[in-house]
Amino acid sequence: MGRIIVEVMPKPEILDPQGKAVGSALPRLGISSFTSVRQGKCFHLDVEGAVTDEHLAQARRAAEEVLSNPIIEDVVRVEELLVDEGAHGDAQ
Amino acid sequence: MGRIIVEVMPKPEILDPQGKAVGSALPRLGISSFTSVRQGKCFHLDVEGAVTDEHLAQARRAAEEVLSNPIIEDVVRVEELLVDEGAHGDAQ
Repeated sequence: MGRIIVEVMPKPEILDPQGKAVGSALPRLGISSFTSVRQGKCFHLDVEGAVTDEHLAQARRAAEEVLSNPIIEDVVRVEELLVDEGAHGDAQ
Repeated sequence: MGRIIVEVMPKPEILDPQGKAVGSALPRLGISSFTSVRQGKCFHLDVEGAVTDEHLAQARRAAEEVLSNPIIEDVVRVEELLVDEGAHGDAQ
């Protein structure tokens, strides 16, 4: 099974209230290294078999037409998700 | 400026109504390659200067304590975002 990841972020000039809320909460936990927090969306699109160029083209179309709102968001990543990256519990 | 990306996905056993809704919408656009769609969140955490191990440790703590709900979500990625990856408009 192949997997494609799509990442969508608010455009830099767009206010991001969710990111701001997270950014304000972190110092209360003693986490104050971060100068900016932005929150976006990511999607895992699974395909049967290996990921092909055709799958990636469809994923890009899906990203532009369904997964993002081009007025306020940018699609920042559409690519095959490699096994060693998206594995659950791999954040240690 | 350095940037860390955090990706949070619903646990595999958790229903994901947003992903399901997207998955149902795609065939109406003629996009039918995808057997499953899951939607998660991603965060860009910016730091001054280069990303250090200390920044990554704080990002992991933030991911576990603020950015995700460990009951229903997994933190699937916490790492430095390389320039060639998170660049806006880089999805071609």
